[in-house]
Amino acid sequence: MKRKAKQPRGKGRVPARPGRAGGKGKGRVSARPGRAGEKGKAAVEGQRSLSRQTRAGRVQQASGQAGATGKEAGLAPSGRAGAMGKEAGLAASGRAGEITGEIAGEKTLMVVGSVALDSVKTPFGQVQEVLGGSAAFFATAASYFTSVNVIAVVGEDFPEEHLTFLRERDIDLSGVERRPGKTFRWRGEYSYQLNEAKTLETQLNVFESFRPQVPASHRSPGMLFLANIDPDLQRSVLEQVKRPRLVACDTMNFWIDGKRDALIRLLKDVDVLLINDGEARALGQHPNLVAVARTILAAGPKTLIIKRGEYGVVMFTADRIFAVPAFPLEAVKDPTGAGDCFAGGFMGYLASSGNVSEHALRRAVVYGSVMASFAVEAFSLDRLRVLDQTDIVARFGAFKQMTIFEEL
Amino acid sequence: MKRKAKQPRGKGRVPARPGRAGGKGKGRVSARPGRAGEKGKAAVEGQRSLSRQTRAGRVQQASGQAGATGKEAGLAPSGRAGAMGKEAGLAASGRAGEITGEIAGEKTLMVVGSVALDSVKTPFGQVQEVLGGSAAFFATAASYFTSVNVIAVVGEDFPEEHLTFLRERDIDLSGVERRPGKTFRWRGEYSYQLNEAKTLETQLNVFESFRPQVPASHRSPGMLFLANIDPDLQRSVLEQVKRPRLVACDTMNFWIDGKRDALIRLLKDVDVLLINDGEARALGQHPNLVAVARTILAAGPKTLIIKRGEYGVVMFTADRIFAVPAFPLEAVKDPTGAGDCFAGGFMGYLASSGNVSEHALRRAVVYGSVMASFAVEAFSLDRLRVLDQTDIVARFGAFKQMTIFEEL
Repeated sequence: MKRKAKQPRGKGRVPARPGRAGGKGKGRVSARPGRAGEKGKAAVEGQRSLSRQTRAGRVQQASGQAGATGKEAGLAPSGRAGAMGKEAGLAASGRAGEITGEIAGEKTLMVVGSVALDSVKTPFGQVQEVLGGSAAFFATAASYFTSVNVIAVVGEDFPEEHLTFLRERDIDLSGVERRPGKTFRWRGEYSYQLNEAKTLETQLNVFESFRPQVPASHRSPGMLFLANIDPDLQRSVLEQVKRPRLVACDTMNFWIDGKRDALIRLLKDVDVLLINDGEARALGQHPNLVAVARTILAAGPKTLIIKRGEYGVVMFTADRIFAVPAFPLEAVKDPTGAGDCFAGGFMGYLASSGNVSEHALRRAVVYGSVMASFAVEAFSLDRLRVLDQTDIVARFGAFKQMTIFEEL
Repeated sequence: MKRKAKQPRGKGRVPARPGRAGGKGKGRVSARPGRAGEKGKAAVEGQRSLSRQTRAGRVQQASGQAGATGKEAGLAPSGRAGAMGKEAGLAASGRAGEITGEIAGEKTLMVVGSVALDSVKTPFGQVQEVLGGSAAFFATAASYFTSVNVIAVVGEDFPEEHLTFLRERDIDLSGVERRPGKTFRWRGEYSYQLNEAKTLETQLNVFESFRPQVPASHRSPGMLFLANIDPDLQRSVLEQVKRPRLVACDTMNFWIDGKRDALIRLLKDVDVLLINDGEARALGQHPNLVAVARTILAAGPKTLIIKRGEYGVVMFTADRIFAVPAFPLEAVKDPTGAGDCFAGGFMGYLASSGNVSEHALRRAVVYGSVMASFAVEAFSLDRLRVLDQTDIVARFGAFKQMTIFEEL
């Protein structure tokens, strides 16, 4: 295992267990009148100005719309058009036409995971108590593509400015509970090779008794991402919603080893599993990734995405393999959150395109790689704060340039 | 450093130093009447039948010929045709039209390196004293694309059957010296992850005093590969030949650390450097590969190819990066020689196509990856012994399928 990087950081610290539910509904962040003063007003204004910003800032709306069906021919090498044209995989699930009862519900993406305060040190600097957590990274990356609802918990001390930032990205926080106690904190350090975080301190705080509750208004998400938490909690979220068109999940060795049965049960209902290579080997109980992929695909997911940090990503489906290298960057400052930003770009694109064909999945993997490549360029979500659609489109193009070669 | 794999195996054992030249010219393998009996006859017959076989077996002759110029449009994404059409890099060297004075000399590829007897143990089996060595792996892989001349040394005990095999692949062995003493032997073992060989024994034998001599008839090779030997010996070969159209070299940490100055001097005259990621970081003295690439490209080579074992290959030129993942294989038996087979496919394709444009280099990287992917499927050169053109073309297509995604 080379690098746990961003996704792992969220991993060494989320052994959350179902706790008592106390205070649900009342403590929701978006409904807290007690904090509505100046900051609340700013947030509302943020929301407004945001409706404009995100319309412009959404990658999918300005490009790519035609892609999934428009240029199929480009994908098929001479003489193999038939094989490539065959749309195996998720598209066949028959859920495409499902009526969700929500306006634009089909494009809405829900995530359950952590929202945290991270303190991170790398050879290129350090930050104290900055915005972190799998759901925060995921939602921010996905917000460039579609509307996102977050199911998470924060403590009384969680800074309003972070919530404002997320709301300004048009992220729906009505599923974020604010509970008595302190916010989940993680402190970690990376060596010069940036390939694995050393966890210095984990304070679960309110995350320890996190029991995700999906607001009634959010029970028909178009797609759902179960970030790395206890498989039983992941299942509880799945059971609270009408079956989404696509369900993806992440996990880590802590659950693979400690709650294997619960995880295996969950996987039967998961469409896409996103994990890193070490986790894949632990789950598939074999050193060879092809053998591992066969085992995992037989357990439920139709798609397995293996994240390999600086080496990129490989996606296995029943009869295809797609692999894309990571973008070689000189300015890698902090790998924290890269895996979650990958998932955010991946799911955000799929949700926005409403397409889960092999073609769409491949593009989604590239969008995920694009978002991860930005995430590592700065601490916390700082690079994503100043990202615009042009940056994303340009880097997508750079991935194409980097990987293209001529047919025979 | 994840995996020294095939190229490393050739590396942990080639600290050859210039020795006395004794016996040169006389002991050449191809001129040994004393061994000509039954085996010699077989070899001659092998050569004959081979002329047919290789005509059919050469990838370049049956396909790919038109590619370098025929389908440029496919390479250029919308709106970027100009940038991609720009043929930066090696094509600008002005050596394309050089007259070598040899019939078909422009397509001839020369390699200097080791020919060895390997004993290898992996979790999937073990072999004793089988054909190995960087020059043997390289030449065999390249022989699927073009004519190859080998400059190497073997001992009195080197089995004639190995020479017969190489000759049957249409490989010219007139530059292989047979000297008094025993052949270079290497014994190594791989753990279950197959990512790094543990050297158990190295007997340099005749390789210790190897001083490469290029026969007069071979002094105008079209292209030259300096496999991993002492940089001073690499230079001596370069000085014995008329400047080839393209010179590539490999090296290892032993020389990077021990003969850095000689290596840096050599690099000024090298077009393509092929090394693994650990070696690149050691040579560039920086953990970041982009920074390393800039440093190395400034030292001479116009192209840097970094081999990353199971993660694939990344190629850096002045203004472009090309990356291709390794082919995920379930049946990896022995990684010994993969790096040299990569180099053989890479250089073999370039020599056969007579083209060193960015397009050709990218295809060459894929052909290299194809040959490496076959090499690891069996011990020694066993997979390459039974390979045919159809296999190579099919796997090239599989690489394309594995890496393609739609533009925006």
